Parts: sequence; C-alpha cells; structure tokens
Amino acid sequence: MTVETNVRLNGVDLDAVGSLVGAVQADPAAAQTTWAAQVNWKGGFQSESRVRNFAPVASDEPSTIGGTDTAPNPVEQLLAALGNCLAVGYAANASVAGIAIESLSIGLKGDLNLKTFLGLEAGHAGFDSITAKVNLISDAPREDIEALHAKVRASSPVGHTLGIAIPVSIGPAG
Amino acid sequence: MTVETNVRLNGVDLDAVGSLVGAVQADPAAAQTTWAAQVNWKGGFQSESRVRNFAPVASDEPSTIGGTDTAPNPVEQLLAALGNCLAVGYAANASVAGIAIESLSIGLKGDLNLKTFLGLEAGHAGFDSITAKVNLISDAPREDIEALHAKVRASSPVGHTLGIAIPVSIGPAG
Repeated sequence: MTVETNVRLNGVDLDAVGSLVGAVQADPAAAQTTWAAQVNWKGGFQSESRVRNFAPVASDEPSTIGGTDTAPNPVEQLLAALGNCLAVGYAANASVAGIAIESLSIGLKGDLNLKTFLGLEAGHAGFDSITAKVNLISDAPREDIEALHAKVRASSPVGHTLGIAIPVSIGPAG
Repeated sequence: MTVETNVRLNGVDLDAVGSLVGAVQADPAAAQTTWAAQVNWKGGFQSESRVRNFAPVASDEPSTIGGTDTAPNPVEQLLAALGNCLAVGYAANASVAGIAIESLSIGLKGDLNLKTFLGLEAGHAGFDSITAKVNLISDAPREDIEALHAKVRASSPVGHTLGIAIPVSIGPAG
C-alpha cells in the first residue's frame, strides 16, 4: 500500500491528522482545546444552537412533552452527537489501520425515565444507558474489525464524556 | 394570576405538560421513554444524523482535525444539546413557577485534551469539564431566579447524563 493510497483511504485526510499528531508531539499543550456553543431560547420549548459561523440548528420537544415538534429534541441531539463522534472515530482509526470502509451507519438508543425531569421525583434525570449499534461493512479481516471497534471505544470524545462523570457547572453568567 | 395566563406563560403549553404529569402519576411506567437517532457516514469525517422524520443534520470536523469544516463537530453538538436541554428546563420550570422570561441565552464551553482521541495516550478522551453560563432576563425576584437555577440543575436530562457516569455500549449490530 502506497502513502498516496493511505492518504485518501475512506476520504480521510491523514496528512492533516498526521500534522496535528506531530504538533501535539512537539508541544503537548497543543492538544488542549476548548469548544463552544451558544443557545438562544425562542419561546416555548423551542431554541436554536449556534456554533462558530454555521447556520443555527433548531431544537424543540414533541407535543407529548409540551413542545411544538418542529425539530429533534435535546436528548435525541445527544444521541446524534455520539453517533457522529463514533463515525469520525471509525473513519480515522480505519484509515490509519489501512481498513477500507464500504459503508457505515450507527443506530443509537437510550432509555430515560421522565420522572425527575417532570419534577415528580428527585434523582437522575438523564439517560440510564445508551447503546450504539454499529453497522460497518468492510472486507477487512474479522480481527482487524474487532481491533477497530476496541480502538474507537477507547478514544471517543463524546463516548467518554457520557461514560464517565464530568463536572457540569450550570449557573448565571457574569 | 388566572389559569389562562399560566397556560401561555413563556409560550409553554402547561396543559400538555400537566397531561404528561397526570399520565405518569396514573401509571409510573408512562415515564419510561426510549429515544433514538441514526447516523450515516458520508466519507471522510462527514456524517449526518436522522431523528424521526426530521431533515438530516450535518456533522464534520474542522480542517485542523482533518475534516472539511462544513458543519459543527460532535463535541460542539454535545454542548448545543446541553444548552437546548437547559432552555427547555428554564422555560418549563419558570412557567410552572409563574416567572415570565424576557430573554434567555446560554453560552456553553468545554475543555478537551485531544491526546487520547489522537491515540497518543490511553485515558479519558472526553471533556474534562463543561460550563453553561445562563443569561436570563426576568423581572422576577432574585430568590425566585435562584430557585429556578437550582430546579433546572436538579432536573436536566442532558446535564445529568453528562454529570454522572452512564453505561455506554458501543459495538457491532446484531
């Protein structure tokens, strides 16, 4: 396999990934990043998020929860974020390992008891568990695919954020 | 304050919320919900998420990480999901408490070290911490606003999912 083939495998720009790895190896501080988003409430249960210069993305709740059902709700967005993160992880790690991906889709599900959200009970308001089922089509040997699953599990930023407890500070600005 | 005023406060449909609360009180099993999303990989670091019948939402990575920078990335989406969830929480709890919200925006930030994502080090690949700064404009008394912040913190599905460790299962489908 030539370097040229590798660079384009799965459409992943391995040169850019390699440059970032080199930058972090030269200066570990380069790995420390901060990400941001801004949410503006639009009335009722509608809001929109803004990230950098991209178009705002709408959020709403189903009518069963009191919303107007015009967009995915926040917990669905959380599942989508996990799936998108895993897609990046599979594409990146497969490319580094020389595995060509024919197709990849990920089905995400999470169970959530609404009692705490509704104020009926103190306790955990969030997902009790989340499952990501990965449909990966590839001609690569079974053991390479198993190693790929393990690598993605071990390195997913959104997966790890959900899988461990992190400090979440919520309060008035300024 | 009349019931009619309450029903429309902040644009929140308190009748619908009240119906859901009543249904859960009559049958606690009604509080148990399952949410889903589907992610399809589009090549490189691009993917799109689908939720119910809504239009697909794009995901990409910045060019510094090897992406083509066409959409917010998964960790930004995660922050957005938290902000949208908090917006619902503020709107719902303010309306129940009779607090009129003039405006509400939420700035979200999270620190993340890329070393584990890049495969340079084993460990935690996710956010180390997340901060949500809430800009809430309201004429309500200060103590009511403080109680509102506390209620939202105590009942946010996305906030709690991030703030405690939950089981995240990632692996091949079927």
